[in-house]
Amino acid sequence: MNHASSVNTMVAKIKDQKKTETGALKYLGERINEANTLAIDRILSVEPVFIDVDTALNVIPGMTHDTILHAGPPIEWERMCDPMKRAVRGALVFEGLAENDEAAIQLLKRKKVKLSPNHHHDAAGAMTGIISPSMPVIVTKDSTFGKTVFSTFNEGAGKVLWFGSFEKETLDRLKWIRDIFGPVMKKVIKKAQGIPIWSILAQGIQMGDECHNRHAASSNLFLKRILEPLVSIDLSKRVLLQVYNFIAGNSHFFLNITMAACKLSMDAARGIRESTVVTAMSRNGTDFGIRISGLGNEWCTAPAPYLKDALYNPGYNFNDGAPDIGDSSIIETMGLGGFAIAAAPAMASFAGGGFQESIRITKEMGRITLVKNQKFGIPVLDFEGTPTGIDLRKVVEIGISPSINSAVLHKSSGAGQIGAGIVKAPYECFSKALKAFGRKYT
Amino acid sequence: MNHASSVNTMVAKIKDQKKTETGALKYLGERINEANTLAIDRILSVEPVFIDVDTALNVIPGMTHDTILHAGPPIEWERMCDPMKRAVRGALVFEGLAENDEAAIQLLKRKKVKLSPNHHHDAAGAMTGIISPSMPVIVTKDSTFGKTVFSTFNEGAGKVLWFGSFEKETLDRLKWIRDIFGPVMKKVIKKAQGIPIWSILAQGIQMGDECHNRHAASSNLFLKRILEPLVSIDLSKRVLLQVYNFIAGNSHFFLNITMAACKLSMDAARGIRESTVVTAMSRNGTDFGIRISGLGNEWCTAPAPYLKDALYNPGYNFNDGAPDIGDSSIIETMGLGGFAIAAAPAMASFAGGGFQESIRITKEMGRITLVKNQKFGIPVLDFEGTPTGIDLRKVVEIGISPSINSAVLHKSSGAGQIGAGIVKAPYECFSKALKAFGRKYT
Repeated sequence: MNHASSVNTMVAKIKDQKKTETGALKYLGERINEANTLAIDRILSVEPVFIDVDTALNVIPGMTHDTILHAGPPIEWERMCDPMKRAVRGALVFEGLAENDEAAIQLLKRKKVKLSPNHHHDAAGAMTGIISPSMPVIVTKDSTFGKTVFSTFNEGAGKVLWFGSFEKETLDRLKWIRDIFGPVMKKVIKKAQGIPIWSILAQGIQMGDECHNRHAASSNLFLKRILEPLVSIDLSKRVLLQVYNFIAGNSHFFLNITMAACKLSMDAARGIRESTVVTAMSRNGTDFGIRISGLGNEWCTAPAPYLKDALYNPGYNFNDGAPDIGDSSIIETMGLGGFAIAAAPAMASFAGGGFQESIRITKEMGRITLVKNQKFGIPVLDFEGTPTGIDLRKVVEIGISPSINSAVLHKSSGAGQIGAGIVKAPYECFSKALKAFGRKYT
Repeated sequence: MNHASSVNTMVAKIKDQKKTETGALKYLGERINEANTLAIDRILSVEPVFIDVDTALNVIPGMTHDTILHAGPPIEWERMCDPMKRAVRGALVFEGLAENDEAAIQLLKRKKVKLSPNHHHDAAGAMTGIISPSMPVIVTKDSTFGKTVFSTFNEGAGKVLWFGSFEKETLDRLKWIRDIFGPVMKKVIKKAQGIPIWSILAQGIQMGDECHNRHAASSNLFLKRILEPLVSIDLSKRVLLQVYNFIAGNSHFFLNITMAACKLSMDAARGIRESTVVTAMSRNGTDFGIRISGLGNEWCTAPAPYLKDALYNPGYNFNDGAPDIGDSSIIETMGLGGFAIAAAPAMASFAGGGFQESIRITKEMGRITLVKNQKFGIPVLDFEGTPTGIDLRKVVEIGISPSINSAVLHKSSGAGQIGAGIVKAPYECFSKALKAFGRKYT
């Protein structure tokens, strides 16, 4: 069966038209199906465990004293959006690599700082997603295949680096996380002998979390899980309560742990020959990039979209928002977040049309995915699993883009988060990816 | 307008027929409507706060050294069901009033023990609902009208008195609750300066609790709320962890606090002249009783029903179950539990027909109630409030009985809980109540 040459002929003949692109791929159909079955098997086999806390420089592959990791596909300093630029500057000051903001800007202009995407270093970060060398990081490990993935601790709301705002308060909090919180959590996680992540998310899905913009239940469940080790280690009551209240006061605390777990799962499916499964969706605030299993580490990018229909905080509107940003869409790549919005009625206001619209979105995501993940049963759908494993072919053929539950940062003022809502991954990423796939396999 | 004599004529003429009873009541219609509006206003105005922990003997009105309080309407020893008898005997041994089980039985046969319903002492208890003099009790207070209601701490699952089983393990746990847990919780609640109850339940409803058989989220939220005071008081780590783990290990912990809060609300509507609002539903395992606002403290009873369609633990079936038992149906009287089952998809298996059946039940309960309680927005119904304030007239006229989420105790072996499911309040209670209402007001 000479699929390849048939496809080649087709692709050559009808290059840019969506319908025929898909048609071409159908010749490869059976082999793609087999590859995708393997990809899905691997995705569903991953068992992520929060196993340790360590300093980024010690554990993240390729991290150096002068490296700053960021969200999304690769991007140079000049093209970064304002909130990401601010977060990079803040990180340089936090690291002592620059004495102040002005000095940080000079370092960056003179290209004295290595900027690199989290995704190239087994890491994931929310919103601006900055990881700098001295930050303590969550270490998650897949007990099935053995891979490790890293993320920072979530800083909470307000003047925080992940929202691209930095002030004295921001740096003070980062120092406390580095000097107090991180070392305590290292002891806690060691004492707990690791914390399996899916079981917390599976309970969260039963309690109204979609596990991206709503982590209220899973953050509480995590807190409950670590209390005994937290109390058991040798701490003053003051520090114990600081640590406890920091987590208890942040309903997004578990977000970064979820991201790392989802990346572990999706990375397990990376680089499978002829698989059309989407293994990453990520945004740097300028570009939106996706990765396809069969295309390995290649990014297929398009301009990052704006959140037109988001709910904005009072005093802000669509015109104030930066484009979509963050590695957190790895959660949707794994079938949670926007794909699981029917599990989170409290997120219905995001969907604009009430709860029935949330159900419609989850059902629609079922049309572009390959499997229902029975680990995460959506209660109101009679425990039907979350729609998982985006198939590039289906996105292009049906013309439905993945739906992502996201947040909006201010485009220029450093105000941080100004809204939240749903964004659709750009169709252009998928049509580009399909062409690249066609080129590679035909 | 001589409503009374018209009604009298009607009632005299057509006594026992449901349709005409209701017809008769319609003459009283406007005055009943006014009375019910007041009842609902009072129910929705109550703001229950968990304010203290104290010993039953110190605080429960009418409690004496030789009194044992029980669930349901009044009942003499001989007519009690087996699990309630066992719980009473266990309480006598726990109190030291009897040296052993045999001595307890003799005391009871010789009527040396005062048995009285919780509801006659501003108290509520789950399942057998036993409260004995030395037990520490939750003290809840309505900050609107000032009334106080009491309940015990929930013992958890297994060999526990509230399930009518007692062994050394049961008594040891009760002693620990009395000597260690209760005093610690007294300090915690004092330090917390009281804990408002509705706000925890309102969050619980958003996180999959129906607040009767599922309290997983609200128990976690309570635990999170008390952690800071718990750590702040002077305790050894050992005791701190014992107390924490006792609550963390029991997803029904908040149940007894919910019962007390619901009783505060319903008691606020008790004794309003001409009101047909149901102010209590309660079962002692032999009789099912209801109270109607306009009938004051009168109980209208019928035989307690069996749970035919319950889910039974392996090895047990319908033939092993005792009739329905417990004061916890005060929760349904307040529009939570079975009335709010659409908020708890995890309870769908109770409903037998999946999640759509849960929605149907909540909608049906809307037909026999007077108001939607906006404090508790049911997420999947686009935050429609829980159906609250059962109208005796509607139950009789439409012929739909209240739906209660309940559990089943073994009828004879002392095995404790053997199943859980939905039970319907007996229609007979309501038809009797309507007749009594007719007699009183015509």
